[in-house]
Amino acid sequence: MNGLMMDRPLLISSLLTHAESQHGDQEIVSRRVEGDLHRMTYRELGQRARRLANALAAHGIGHGERVATLAWNGHRHMELYYAVSGSGAVLHTVNPRLHADQAAWIAEHAVDQILFFDLSFLPLVETIAPRVASIKAFVAMTDRAHMPASTTIPNLLCYEELLEAHSPAFDWPEFDERSASSLCYTSGTTGNPKGVLYSHRSTVLHAYAAALPDALCYSGSDTVLPVVPMFHVNAWGIPYIACMVGAKLVFPGPRLDGPSLHELFEAEGVTVSAGVPTVWQGLLAHVEANGLKFSTMRRTVIGGSACPPAMVQSFQERHGVQVVHAWGMTETSPLGSVCRLQTRHLELDASQRLAIQAKQGRAVFGVEMKIVDAHGERLPNDGLVTGELMVRGPWIASGYYRGEGAGPVVDGWFPTGDVSTIDAEGFMQISDRSKDVIKSGGEWIGSIDLENIAVAHPAVAAAACIAARHPKWDERPLLIVVKKPGHELSRDELLGFYEGKIARWWTPDDVVFVDSIPLGGTGKVQKNVLRDAWRDHLLAQA
Amino acid sequence: MNGLMMDRPLLISSLLTHAESQHGDQEIVSRRVEGDLHRMTYRELGQRARRLANALAAHGIGHGERVATLAWNGHRHMELYYAVSGSGAVLHTVNPRLHADQAAWIAEHAVDQILFFDLSFLPLVETIAPRVASIKAFVAMTDRAHMPASTTIPNLLCYEELLEAHSPAFDWPEFDERSASSLCYTSGTTGNPKGVLYSHRSTVLHAYAAALPDALCYSGSDTVLPVVPMFHVNAWGIPYIACMVGAKLVFPGPRLDGPSLHELFEAEGVTVSAGVPTVWQGLLAHVEANGLKFSTMRRTVIGGSACPPAMVQSFQERHGVQVVHAWGMTETSPLGSVCRLQTRHLELDASQRLAIQAKQGRAVFGVEMKIVDAHGERLPNDGLVTGELMVRGPWIASGYYRGEGAGPVVDGWFPTGDVSTIDAEGFMQISDRSKDVIKSGGEWIGSIDLENIAVAHPAVAAAACIAARHPKWDERPLLIVVKKPGHELSRDELLGFYEGKIARWWTPDDVVFVDSIPLGGTGKVQKNVLRDAWRDHLLAQA
Repeated sequence: MNGLMMDRPLLISSLLTHAESQHGDQEIVSRRVEGDLHRMTYRELGQRARRLANALAAHGIGHGERVATLAWNGHRHMELYYAVSGSGAVLHTVNPRLHADQAAWIAEHAVDQILFFDLSFLPLVETIAPRVASIKAFVAMTDRAHMPASTTIPNLLCYEELLEAHSPAFDWPEFDERSASSLCYTSGTTGNPKGVLYSHRSTVLHAYAAALPDALCYSGSDTVLPVVPMFHVNAWGIPYIACMVGAKLVFPGPRLDGPSLHELFEAEGVTVSAGVPTVWQGLLAHVEANGLKFSTMRRTVIGGSACPPAMVQSFQERHGVQVVHAWGMTETSPLGSVCRLQTRHLELDASQRLAIQAKQGRAVFGVEMKIVDAHGERLPNDGLVTGELMVRGPWIASGYYRGEGAGPVVDGWFPTGDVSTIDAEGFMQISDRSKDVIKSGGEWIGSIDLENIAVAHPAVAAAACIAARHPKWDERPLLIVVKKPGHELSRDELLGFYEGKIARWWTPDDVVFVDSIPLGGTGKVQKNVLRDAWRDHLLAQA
Repeated sequence: MNGLMMDRPLLISSLLTHAESQHGDQEIVSRRVEGDLHRMTYRELGQRARRLANALAAHGIGHGERVATLAWNGHRHMELYYAVSGSGAVLHTVNPRLHADQAAWIAEHAVDQILFFDLSFLPLVETIAPRVASIKAFVAMTDRAHMPASTTIPNLLCYEELLEAHSPAFDWPEFDERSASSLCYTSGTTGNPKGVLYSHRSTVLHAYAAALPDALCYSGSDTVLPVVPMFHVNAWGIPYIACMVGAKLVFPGPRLDGPSLHELFEAEGVTVSAGVPTVWQGLLAHVEANGLKFSTMRRTVIGGSACPPAMVQSFQERHGVQVVHAWGMTETSPLGSVCRLQTRHLELDASQRLAIQAKQGRAVFGVEMKIVDAHGERLPNDGLVTGELMVRGPWIASGYYRGEGAGPVVDGWFPTGDVSTIDAEGFMQISDRSKDVIKSGGEWIGSIDLENIAVAHPAVAAAACIAARHPKWDERPLLIVVKKPGHELSRDELLGFYEGKIARWWTPDDVVFVDSIPLGGTGKVQKNVLRDAWRDHLLAQA
């Protein structure tokens, strides 16, 4: 027997119409590629998104067809988020930091029909344009005055002219909430990129869960600046959550350096933000070097890679900004878990609290988590045993776009490739990526703990720990370190810094000082590149 | 094209398993009919709910069959919420304040199979037991020691023995999220009661929306005391929201008087609550008469009927408890709108802020609202024009249980029977029930404004305004008033109190002083009873 409730679908267009009717005057501020600071309201967002939806229809974009973007965080990208998905097509956010070959491969694989791009990416688009046969129109996201004087792209369209030419009257269609809404490729370190295909249902449910008080806790009184790019897992859902709750939005555009971000935080009264550790590192360095402060910032979410406790401490103790450590991946929409201290944790001392905040936290309602051993058997939630983290829920991938075979799911659970513990309170802590874990004499050593200690040393700017081959123990940890400019640091001094902080046999066998550590397209350390370079370092010493 | 996301159903059992795994040690405290204060954890809730699910299965309760409760807010009622719905049956919460005839009619109409009841309701159950043929088992929600010495109910079962007899091992079944989960009858003032049949989908979506920061804003650091009964629209969803966010729960049981509530608020450190204005009136009177304070209470949700601004003021200005005015009805699960001040409202002066808080607020995401004229044409959101409030969304009723004909929905919208305005910011304000509105010479006068002014007078304990027949104007407002004990108040003094507060022609024509105002089973004023008694009062004077 079914309930007698209205059969209303969960659709992304409903988020926009909600924001228009309930938060019409709320602001969206964008630093644009053109250099200006643009302001509009949610009411105008609705009008512009409907113009754009009419333009897409005029270009023959059908239900489920892919429309690609190569763009920063800005209001035009936001308009595309709603116009494309709202009208039933699929928004394919391409990562502009990818190599041109990869970007072209992805656009071709997705069979993209139109490509919208920010002017910054004109050279990239000119490179891939002749190679992707499916794209029948290219649109520069700017006005006529800023259109490129010359380009190799045939019939390049102007975004603002396109909007001008179409009516703001458009009825958002209703369709099955399981329909595809957006597409984001993961930049795997091996094999071809894999496309994760979100649905309207998964996107709306994810937004509900992510906005909850113990998750991101965004409200209509907040001013949100998403540092995380809109080409990384839909900026962690913030473009959707902002419409759901009516928060003021501030888009930083292309300038993600410390000074630009700090200026924008202060000028627009940003209260909450979200991004990966590497961005915060730049911002904190700028703030500390110049004796600045955060006047309005109350809280930031940090995810994408593990957040070192030293960064949590710096934000909270020196700047009064609460850190919310979170975990997720492209395949999890991305929010899987959030680390929020509860009232009872306030009784703990600072170091105990910091130890909890080093964890990636508890599953938000909607996501289930478990850890399993090599045979897929469930392991206990005792905070000690490590196993592969498995997740399931309505916003977790069941397969990959145009994927072959049965897809990644094992008995209804998605294997994350992360190795973690889960404690009795449900707090999960990632110890490593399963492919990065260091297998020393049959025991596992997680690289994240070793890296967190290294970056807490005042002379260390960045650190990565990899598995190096060893004649006796198979693998041993090797630390790769970038020193802070103007600081001296010896191998022995740094290894001595581990004493008392970790089991002695976890201490790295050696330290290699380098000028920089390679980061991939999503800002994560490319450990495979480091392993290729240093895998035999310990053997050579032996 | 569908997205490639897991097809996981939204089920009530998932709320419980989430609470067990993520908030296992969190407390549920219950003041019980037996007189004691009972404590357990969410982990124990899970175990006891599974024992109960096995007991239901042993009694042959099948998918979709109805299990009735006549119970206060307490842990056993909570166990029933999860055991019944979780195992696929339908929880029918019967309002024990109904007349025995109505309760029997409802139980028969619902074809209830088992009836669980708190000892307080033994006499009521003994009255209806012989009249409801479908009920095959009666269970007293207590232990063996407290079972009634004698009863006319054949084979009366003991709740704690039932749990003891069954295993805590039970796998919650998975099924379509549109399956019915619970049933609540509205106590209409005319015609037979109508059953609203909720689904798992509607319940989970409602919980997500209701927990949002600008709605109830409940978190794992909160201690929630639901004053609103679990037999009124599922206690506004709090039993579900609490599991979703892991809040500590405090159930007040049968004692809802001011002294009992205040003692429990203080003893358990309650931070947030929810209930109808009449309950708060008793609590505030007790607190003020005895010079008490609220040490931990930060916020309460007030709904069910319009909250008089005088009550908002008293809570906020004298006790530091923030009031969140909300609107909903049995047919809306119930949350439709919530009134939350935003940062920009803090610039307003106190009276302007209070005027906003007198509104029932903005639609939570998921609910759409509009007002229409007598022909069903949409009226503008200008904050001035009044029309019938229409709503739609995934937790709004599409029909009534075993209802006849096409059901209540008009063009996909549910007509609420409330008359309201909606302003440009989306804030909705109820001016009256459409059947209570006073039609004076073709113009409408809302009774709520007139009542709010009356109860702001220091000598008024309660007031209701009704339409009385008038020889010239068809209808005119007549005020029915209960004076505070020991206070004097004349008709002319009270009518003079309206001067400058409202358009002169809205002022009531006369005042009738009475000893009490009749309240229905859900604590709302029975205006039909008042109209029957006083409809011709003005004619008689003319």
